[in-house]
Amino acid sequence: MIKVAIVGYGNIGKSVFEAVTAAADCELVGVVRRNPAQVPAELAGVQLAGDVADLAVRPDVAILCAPTRAVPEFAKQCLELGINTVDSYDIHGGIWDLKSSLDPIARAHGAVSVHSAGWDPGSDSIVRALMLAAAPKGITYTNFGPGMSMGHTVAVKAIEGVRKALSMTIPLGTSIHRRMVYIELEKGYTCEEVAKKIKADAYFAHDETHVIEVADVDALHDMGHGVNMVRKGVSGITQNQQFEFSMKINNPALTAQILVSAARASVKQAPGAYTMIEIPVIDLLEGDREMLIRQLV
Amino acid sequence: MIKVAIVGYGNIGKSVFEAVTAAADCELVGVVRRNPAQVPAELAGVQLAGDVADLAVRPDVAILCAPTRAVPEFAKQCLELGINTVDSYDIHGGIWDLKSSLDPIARAHGAVSVHSAGWDPGSDSIVRALMLAAAPKGITYTNFGPGMSMGHTVAVKAIEGVRKALSMTIPLGTSIHRRMVYIELEKGYTCEEVAKKIKADAYFAHDETHVIEVADVDALHDMGHGVNMVRKGVSGITQNQQFEFSMKINNPALTAQILVSAARASVKQAPGAYTMIEIPVIDLLEGDREMLIRQLV
Repeated sequence: MIKVAIVGYGNIGKSVFEAVTAAADCELVGVVRRNPAQVPAELAGVQLAGDVADLAVRPDVAILCAPTRAVPEFAKQCLELGINTVDSYDIHGGIWDLKSSLDPIARAHGAVSVHSAGWDPGSDSIVRALMLAAAPKGITYTNFGPGMSMGHTVAVKAIEGVRKALSMTIPLGTSIHRRMVYIELEKGYTCEEVAKKIKADAYFAHDETHVIEVADVDALHDMGHGVNMVRKGVSGITQNQQFEFSMKINNPALTAQILVSAARASVKQAPGAYTMIEIPVIDLLEGDREMLIRQLV
Repeated sequence: MIKVAIVGYGNIGKSVFEAVTAAADCELVGVVRRNPAQVPAELAGVQLAGDVADLAVRPDVAILCAPTRAVPEFAKQCLELGINTVDSYDIHGGIWDLKSSLDPIARAHGAVSVHSAGWDPGSDSIVRALMLAAAPKGITYTNFGPGMSMGHTVAVKAIEGVRKALSMTIPLGTSIHRRMVYIELEKGYTCEEVAKKIKADAYFAHDETHVIEVADVDALHDMGHGVNMVRKGVSGITQNQQFEFSMKINNPALTAQILVSAARASVKQAPGAYTMIEIPVIDLLEGDREMLIRQLV
């Protein structure tokens, strides 16, 4: 059994709890959260701690479910304790630096970190790499949605006059996206003036953006999301090879499942820091190696 | 530069020649074929040999493009010479045994073999494994075509009264396929009697099969093929997660490209025998590791 700790208990943490419980080869040894005295009903009987070092049973792997900006610090702490870490760090431009800075720490303590192990970055990264291997010349388009964008929603909430907000990402193809922004206004603001500010924000300035005032933003929330990746390229010297990957998924549930699969893989890697494309996919899977190869290959 | 030899020079071997030539990090050191005196125009300047041991420059990797049933023997010979091998062995039920029998030979000679490195088995296997990691409970359907089935075509050709044949695989969904069989008849046979024999053959007995007599089978040949893989499953405890992968490709060109990508990966693995799901996808790719991670993850 792989001993797993969950660090951070928001949406993703709760879904990771479900995925760890559903995995026959994983055992939850504790949840680390800022306020360990607050015990959600489903965690009855699970040790809650304010620090991973305080867990009674030492985990093999800590699944980091804290916000992305907190990942580097939590990962460092766990790795220095010799505990593997898995995260869904999602700032694409920062992944290489995160991996590079943690790799020597992981090696020094005989531990493994797996970074950006959600769906994008994460499982989508594997598909992008595979499409490139299949057709080295060509263009890959990653189209997101329809689904909520956390980053864009946070950006709208920061604008004066916005009480509540939801930014939906709508795929228009060739990696072009429309932003549908739903807002509740503070008193004394008009939709027109707020919309102008939203459209001028760096998050929205380059995309087609529509701002719609609604009475109740909460009533629109849905955790569904999707992706459509398309590559048209050249295998050898043969043109027009066409590849497509699509999914329609519950966002936190898939993120959590990939995190748990990556936690399993972490115990099979040599010490060091990894991204998902550096790990054999069979290591993500539960079960006997011969059985898996007979079934999947 | 990775020194590559091509063993066998049929459809796949010719496409591998194109893909090796297109790969900036690979260098062709020779082609091994039964009749090395027969030199196709595109191989002018390339050493042809009847045996891999006779090549003037020792290859790092031999890409085995001989028929599947010849793969075990060629692989064994190369591995015993310490030369890596890559093949597109496509008998799904025999892959584990092939790998198991060659693994100790590869290890003993410090070599690597990569088995079943075409598109199915091959790149599709990676997608199947990834879909399982994303939703451990559920059903994956692999739908092939429209495209020619080599195995079914050979089976039809073996039937008395058939002069030429082409069996096309048509996907009907949920892994159910229709067989469209086009035949030229020998004199003295009727389409009706031959069709009856075809439909009774083990290759066709369980599928919807249509047999059509044509004047010219060659006029129908096309190397295009396709696949559509669908999984609906459960991530953690969340139902109805939906994944789909599709491609429309030139069959030998894609097989060849995956073989060359696997040849590249072979020089990065520890000695032993591998299937595609046991190799990190990044190892299939040409180029700098940092650049690839920044671009793909």
